Amino acid sequence: MDSLLKLLEFGQSYWIDNLTRRMIKNGELKHRVEEQGLGGVTSNPSIFHKAIANSDDYDPQIETLLGEGRSKIEIYEALVTTDIQDACDILHPVYKERKGQDGFVSLEVSPYLAHDTEGSIQEARRLWQTVDRPNLFIKIPGTTAGVPAIEELLFEGININITLLFSIDHYQAVAEAYLRALERRLEAGQAVENIASVASFFLSRIDVLADQLLGHRIPPEGRSPSAPHPENLRGKVAIANAKLAYQRFKEILQSERWKTLAGKGAQVQRMLWASTSTKNPAYRDVMYVEPLIGPYTVNTLPEKTIKAFADHGIVKETVEENIEESRKVFADLEKIGIDLNLVTAQLENEGVQKFIDPYDALLAMLEAKCEHRQSRQTMKPLQETAQQLRRLVIRMTTEAGSGHPTSCLSCAEIVTALFFHEMRWDPSDPKARNVDAFILSKGHAAPILWAALWEAKAINEDPLSLRKWGSSLEGHPTPNNPWVKVATGSLGQGLAAANGIALANRLDDVDARIYCLLGDGECSEGSVWEAAQFASLNHLSNLVAIVDVNALAQSDPAPYQHDTDVFSRRFQSFGWEAITVDGHDLGAILSALEQAKKTGPTAIIAKTEKGKGVSFLEGKEGWHGKPLNREEMEKALAELGEDQAVAPVDSRRVGHYTPPPQSKPAPPLPVNYSLGEQIATRDGFGSALKKLGEFLPELVVLDGDVKNSTRTEYFAEAYPDRFFESYIAEQNMAGAALGLAAYGKIACATSFACFLTRAYDFIRMAGHSRPAHLIFCGSHAGVSIGEDGPSQMGLEDLAMFRAVSGSTILYPCDGVSAEHLTQQATKTQGIVYIRTTRGKTPVIYNNDEPFSIGGSKTLRTSKEDQFTIIAAGITVHEALVAYEQLKKGGILTRIIDAYSIKPLDEETLAKAAHETQGLLTVEDHWLDGGLGDAVAATVCGQVPVYRLAITAEPRSGKPEELLERYGISRQAIVQKILELMD
Amino acid sequence: MDSLLKLLEFGQSYWIDNLTRRMIKNGELKHRVEEQGLGGVTSNPSIFHKAIANSDDYDPQIETLLGEGRSKIEIYEALVTTDIQDACDILHPVYKERKGQDGFVSLEVSPYLAHDTEGSIQEARRLWQTVDRPNLFIKIPGTTAGVPAIEELLFEGININITLLFSIDHYQAVAEAYLRALERRLEAGQAVENIASVASFFLSRIDVLADQLLGHRIPPEGRSPSAPHPENLRGKVAIANAKLAYQRFKEILQSERWKTLAGKGAQVQRMLWASTSTKNPAYRDVMYVEPLIGPYTVNTLPEKTIKAFADHGIVKETVEENIEESRKVFADLEKIGIDLNLVTAQLENEGVQKFIDPYDALLAMLEAKCEHRQSRQTMKPLQETAQQLRRLVIRMTTEAGSGHPTSCLSCAEIVTALFFHEMRWDPSDPKARNVDAFILSKGHAAPILWAALWEAKAINEDPLSLRKWGSSLEGHPTPNNPWVKVATGSLGQGLAAANGIALANRLDDVDARIYCLLGDGECSEGSVWEAAQFASLNHLSNLVAIVDVNALAQSDPAPYQHDTDVFSRRFQSFGWEAITVDGHDLGAILSALEQAKKTGPTAIIAKTEKGKGVSFLEGKEGWHGKPLNREEMEKALAELGEDQAVAPVDSRRVGHYTPPPQSKPAPPLPVNYSLGEQIATRDGFGSALKKLGEFLPELVVLDGDVKNSTRTEYFAEAYPDRFFESYIAEQNMAGAALGLAAYGKIACATSFACFLTRAYDFIRMAGHSRPAHLIFCGSHAGVSIGEDGPSQMGLEDLAMFRAVSGSTILYPCDGVSAEHLTQQATKTQGIVYIRTTRGKTPVIYNNDEPFSIGGSKTLRTSKEDQFTIIAAGITVHEALVAYEQLKKGGILTRIIDAYSIKPLDEETLAKAAHETQGLLTVEDHWLDGGLGDAVAATVCGQVPVYRLAITAEPRSGKPEELLERYGISRQAIVQKILELMD
Repeated sequence: MDSLLKLLEFGQSYWIDNLTRRMIKNGELKHRVEEQGLGGVTSNPSIFHKAIANSDDYDPQIETLLGEGRSKIEIYEALVTTDIQDACDILHPVYKERKGQDGFVSLEVSPYLAHDTEGSIQEARRLWQTVDRPNLFIKIPGTTAGVPAIEELLFEGININITLLFSIDHYQAVAEAYLRALERRLEAGQAVENIASVASFFLSRIDVLADQLLGHRIPPEGRSPSAPHPENLRGKVAIANAKLAYQRFKEILQSERWKTLAGKGAQVQRMLWASTSTKNPAYRDVMYVEPLIGPYTVNTLPEKTIKAFADHGIVKETVEENIEESRKVFADLEKIGIDLNLVTAQLENEGVQKFIDPYDALLAMLEAKCEHRQSRQTMKPLQETAQQLRRLVIRMTTEAGSGHPTSCLSCAEIVTALFFHEMRWDPSDPKARNVDAFILSKGHAAPILWAALWEAKAINEDPLSLRKWGSSLEGHPTPNNPWVKVATGSLGQGLAAANGIALANRLDDVDARIYCLLGDGECSEGSVWEAAQFASLNHLSNLVAIVDVNALAQSDPAPYQHDTDVFSRRFQSFGWEAITVDGHDLGAILSALEQAKKTGPTAIIAKTEKGKGVSFLEGKEGWHGKPLNREEMEKALAELGEDQAVAPVDSRRVGHYTPPPQSKPAPPLPVNYSLGEQIATRDGFGSALKKLGEFLPELVVLDGDVKNSTRTEYFAEAYPDRFFESYIAEQNMAGAALGLAAYGKIACATSFACFLTRAYDFIRMAGHSRPAHLIFCGSHAGVSIGEDGPSQMGLEDLAMFRAVSGSTILYPCDGVSAEHLTQQATKTQGIVYIRTTRGKTPVIYNNDEPFSIGGSKTLRTSKEDQFTIIAAGITVHEALVAYEQLKKGGILTRIIDAYSIKPLDEETLAKAAHETQGLLTVEDHWLDGGLGDAVAATVCGQVPVYRLAITAEPRSGKPEELLERYGISRQAIVQKILELMD
Repeated sequence: MDSLLKLLEFGQSYWIDNLTRRMIKNGELKHRVEEQGLGGVTSNPSIFHKAIANSDDYDPQIETLLGEGRSKIEIYEALVTTDIQDACDILHPVYKERKGQDGFVSLEVSPYLAHDTEGSIQEARRLWQTVDRPNLFIKIPGTTAGVPAIEELLFEGININITLLFSIDHYQAVAEAYLRALERRLEAGQAVENIASVASFFLSRIDVLADQLLGHRIPPEGRSPSAPHPENLRGKVAIANAKLAYQRFKEILQSERWKTLAGKGAQVQRMLWASTSTKNPAYRDVMYVEPLIGPYTVNTLPEKTIKAFADHGIVKETVEENIEESRKVFADLEKIGIDLNLVTAQLENEGVQKFIDPYDALLAMLEAKCEHRQSRQTMKPLQETAQQLRRLVIRMTTEAGSGHPTSCLSCAEIVTALFFHEMRWDPSDPKARNVDAFILSKGHAAPILWAALWEAKAINEDPLSLRKWGSSLEGHPTPNNPWVKVATGSLGQGLAAANGIALANRLDDVDARIYCLLGDGECSEGSVWEAAQFASLNHLSNLVAIVDVNALAQSDPAPYQHDTDVFSRRFQSFGWEAITVDGHDLGAILSALEQAKKTGPTAIIAKTEKGKGVSFLEGKEGWHGKPLNREEMEKALAELGEDQAVAPVDSRRVGHYTPPPQSKPAPPLPVNYSLGEQIATRDGFGSALKKLGEFLPELVVLDGDVKNSTRTEYFAEAYPDRFFESYIAEQNMAGAALGLAAYGKIACATSFACFLTRAYDFIRMAGHSRPAHLIFCGSHAGVSIGEDGPSQMGLEDLAMFRAVSGSTILYPCDGVSAEHLTQQATKTQGIVYIRTTRGKTPVIYNNDEPFSIGGSKTLRTSKEDQFTIIAAGITVHEALVAYEQLKKGGILTRIIDAYSIKPLDEETLAKAAHETQGLLTVEDHWLDGGLGDAVAATVCGQVPVYRLAITAEPRSGKPEELLERYGISRQAIVQKILELMD
């Protein structure tokens, strides 16, 4: 700070070129004045725009002024007046101590008055009276129109900071205006001692423009430079201009005219250096400070330059150094052909524009706030509804003794805006198809969904039954409640389901919107971005995601807290429109929802407070998933006010709706293979899907960039409108399939069996969502894929799908069974998993062989069967070969194709257990959780069950080699049976 | 087109203000000339910059010129000359047909000559000679320095288009220059007929600036306007200026001086209207065309304006309409105080700048190409290495008969840049710790990894053993190869593992970089974005992701094909630096890798071609995952050239490395509970983790925003440096944990048991990666969590983890077993899963009770045991209560706590099977895949196994209520046993 304090010794006062309410309120300005020698403050429309736009410090005053019905210009002036008065008061001790020669705060008249003499005079008078501080400077630009205004105002005794001076001639004009004003005062018998003025000379902007024009004269390499070479003048014009202006200032000071005035006590009109931050990073950052130090000067610095000068500025009297060099700069400029008068004229115009832009922006901002406030008035019934939902949520969760009240409070306005204003829905008909959809992806906020449904009279179940046994108002949404189409509560899943619903609507020609409410925390789930990509790639313009950015996650603040920009940028980068709103401002929410109708998909990023509305919850950590106790509840309800009637809900639908035609009863699937023909089961599956597509208009297929492997490509080619390429994003694929299934489609999602593990949480939740028909098909099961190695082998898919609520598992072994089982899958309720094999296998069934869920096929049997071999898929063929080998050795075995892994054919297994000495299961799956486990659990106690399955880490190799190496081949079966015979 | 063709009837020729090599080559220019009446072409540095920067049409010529060692200015002129000559030739028929009065192409001298008379003359002469076409116009600006140059050049017989005219006075000056030049020619006895000139008067830019200055004089609402009101002049100044200039033109045409020249055959110097696209969208889009139609005029239009005028332009002679109104505009401007001379002077300066900027940019681009080419020269050994890798990959995959050669070919340069130049690694030591890491997230490109390792002499296994049984060169990378630390091949997983490696390096103070190579297709996986977020939140600046954007996925083009911006924007929105490069340009890759060292994490988005280097593969669909046959291979190898020695690899390490201290042998864990004390097993787990943290410096913990539920918060508080908050992103959490484990840490990742399903694919791949120690803990298992409902209940976790390669599963039932089993987990090889319970349970074990993997605890037993009840976790306590009830009824049962679910205590179970009539399993898990299955499969055939487990869709309710409702409570056990006794 020494450099700054030292400036005064050399006759220079430094001022700060910034003013914000924050620096007034937090003591920073006072500290600078008292500890760091700050002598004044300058402001301008740009500074005020930044101050007001970038903080909420002004909001209470704006709110009051709006309440008084003040116009935007009145509000602007009132805000500014308050800050200027406060700053004047903080600077007043300096003003007193330096005897009225320093300690000023400058306030600019409207930039639109730069060319309006009379307007400037009137506004300056008004501001001078309003602010009413002796150490105020009114800033008037030194334009042609400004000069007479300056003279008149100074004559009237108003302190003037003459701004926007670029040329020495203009300086001369305003200096003379000062002299004339003082002379007129003396003539009129008035004192001159207390009249203050500074002439603000601008610096860096001159160099920016001059450097550019010099650049036009600097030939690129290869051409010879002229003399004087323009390069040598770069970065020198502004300082030269200022130094020569100072010389002019000194001439005035030495004039008789001035001496007369000085004799009467007149103050010197100081030179003020403005625009002193270095713009060109190649230049020294204090280049506009160091060379201009001297008596009767002020330097008004931005914070950055203050910091730089405090750090490494060198203080000595310099303003009169290098005068001759400065004159040479001017002479050289002329030789080069640059007219400095044109430069300064342009800068004056640009200077005005530089203040008009932020001034306009500031007024536009105030205008918006004004409109905003009006719309808020009309929002009252909705605001009251939001409060009512809050009260109910508090009561429900306290009664339940668990739940997430604070996560509900943050989205009360969002939910209100949707259910009580925006959405087209019918509270009397949860099954209506042509209505807007709502998905609560942040499922832990279930209580506010129940509260909204209750208040809209859409449910009649007591909300205080929340989380109680038998109530449909569960802890997280489930389809036990008729308004819930997909279960949520595992975060990051709602948007994928919303994608599926949007696709279903498109297929069924329903022009409804889908609103999906997400938490900020769940946006960390990659699945949200898979879904976002899918939505934009598929142009799901009716999809609206609303992110409740309440900044607090379960165990800590959310990673980006209230930085809504992060979410906007991300959604935008995934092809969405993004709108950021105050999530507690119903007007803003409704206007964003309105905007979302124009194009989409749209993400509304709502900045909210967790626990909003209750003082001891709002924005507080440690309240996630905690209900209030009775006492806390009473306190909260007292804060939230009395119960009130909610806004009425109109029953509205989305246009007229024709239900899709009922699918024709499918005839038996035409299957045409020859016995022994080599065909992969994945081919049979793909072929059946395509055939079924003709009879089942509701059949839709999704695939994760492997349609040429899963063979859904056949369907895709035949029914491109019902095929949805989901790329390598299995979670969204599963979620979108669920959304489609929840809206009446028979959805089939396919990938390699191993990659369905990627979507396990989605499959699990799909189980809890209980869709009518949702099929998964996993191809490339087991080590039999061969060379690709373990990463591509589905070895856990049976275990995974067996442990899914209400699942069915089918595992065909040949083309015929693959086709028939695929048809069965489309008729089967709930989640069906079909497991297919990569390699070709021989057809063993006749084309019209019937296959039923829960059945099996006994392929070889006799009364002398010693053991039963139970196989499925690829191992059926191994078992059949083993059978022949064993038979040659005189050992008869029973061979069962357990194509229905879940449910198993218990009866046939029991019979085999009864009739043979033991069961041997053979499967291309880990030992744990697959066919062997299932069979053992079924027949346990009746007969020994032996299991051949994968038990060692697999590696690359030929398919048949791997079956052998991992002990599930024909030879392995023979060997095991022989072992058992011992 | 009629409007355009009609212009000529009114004496106006329209030219196009654009020129590109594409429009020359594709016939567009010819078409416009022949069919649409186009009369000329104008160009300028801005037009050339756009043309050259935005296409590759110029690249072959640039390449040739670079090869000849030409300078950037020479290259610029050569490119431009070619286009101008071609355009002149296309326009020549017009030139001939209109008898030398039209059909011109304009070429501008360097914008740096705008103030250099002599330089302009020399350059114009040179260009005139070089282009050597009669219908060429050289453009010279009408600046003060331009006027004498114009006169001299016209005198010399060079056609001049005088450009950048804004003011009428300047126009007058250049018109006189034309007259003087012609007069001088006559004096010198030279012909004047063939000298052509146009005076280009600029329009819209005048309005832009004038409108702005007028705006300064328009008071905002609430203040009264002056007369003349500035608003009325907006959008009128440019047209007025042009119309008055045309009047000046007509005066000249009527002068005696001109008539003399005309008598000698001189051509009229036409007025050309330039800058005629409308800038202000509020104005009519043909406002600078319609009012200026008349004899001896040219209007040079951008394409947009041509289109608009063809569509709705109205043609009539207008240029002499409204002359008085135009004069009034001038008069009003003066009254308002706007000096038009200042305006036009500023525009002239800005006009020069508008050409200097693109001219500089163009030269900089050529400079970069120049440097680039030089660096490409020095890249030769690396380029050759990349080709060598390509050849080897082709051979390997053809030999294997499967694999993904095209996916390797796209990243050959990337892999070469890393392994043969950038990475610090030691081909002799795959175990070195202080080296840079490489993760092949796009695991199907394994062959190129093997090829690189082979060529770098890091492996000695025959590359032709690819995908063969026993070879470590598997189809996708697995740790069978010592250079592979984590198995990849399930896409979207590499970056998460890279995160873990980066954390391990940070903990171990190794300043190595981690390079992760991804495919573009896998960026559809949400897990990539989970990982991206984690990397930026954790400031993993040493992490470099390289995305091989080869635009083709497996079954179709990738969703964004070659739109690299999508990837850049996404990575940036996730907090990364992003650099886009040509992925086949080794210089560009190395420079990006260099840049990535400055800050990070950095994503290098590499635009590549799938199948690069082989003509019939490059960019072709249908080649994913297909090897070439022998014949195709030979063809490909022929294209790829002869085998060559690769660039040598220096063995380099990252600084000095001190291995972390060996952890002390942990003492027996101090456990201090009282029998009967109520404590949740999750608490016991959390408490043990914290204690173990002291003895195991390599123990690290990750949690997914539920550390206060899983109780890892105890560890987090004690060892914040070894705790990594992973937020709600379980896939990345699991992947990062694997990365940490692969680099020597004992990693423990925790969430609710149900949410670990989210990471199943990562857990599966972790199994295939065979880490030394990787622990998962799932809390909140089963329906016993109560009110939160099914979405939060872990009911499939046992099935899921049982089917993981080499897994161990532990399920404590009280605080003591939870603590000891947690310690056991840290000592157990491979993947260990610990299942914990939400609610409190009584302590049943003494503090020093020993627990071993594969063990169990027989809690109640006697010689008279009739049945054995096998329970684990929460159900142990139900079984113990049932035991007492049954005992009261005289029935003795054996109670086993099967805390080690995998491996099971087979011996104890066999004994129980032998000694009692049947086994009853009771578990809080789906019936399928859990404890019951495991027990049944173990003892099958020896004794009946009965299973109590969850079989119906659960819902919200109190914990004890749910145990009862779903049949796994004390009462259910008693009832079942009584049933069995019947």
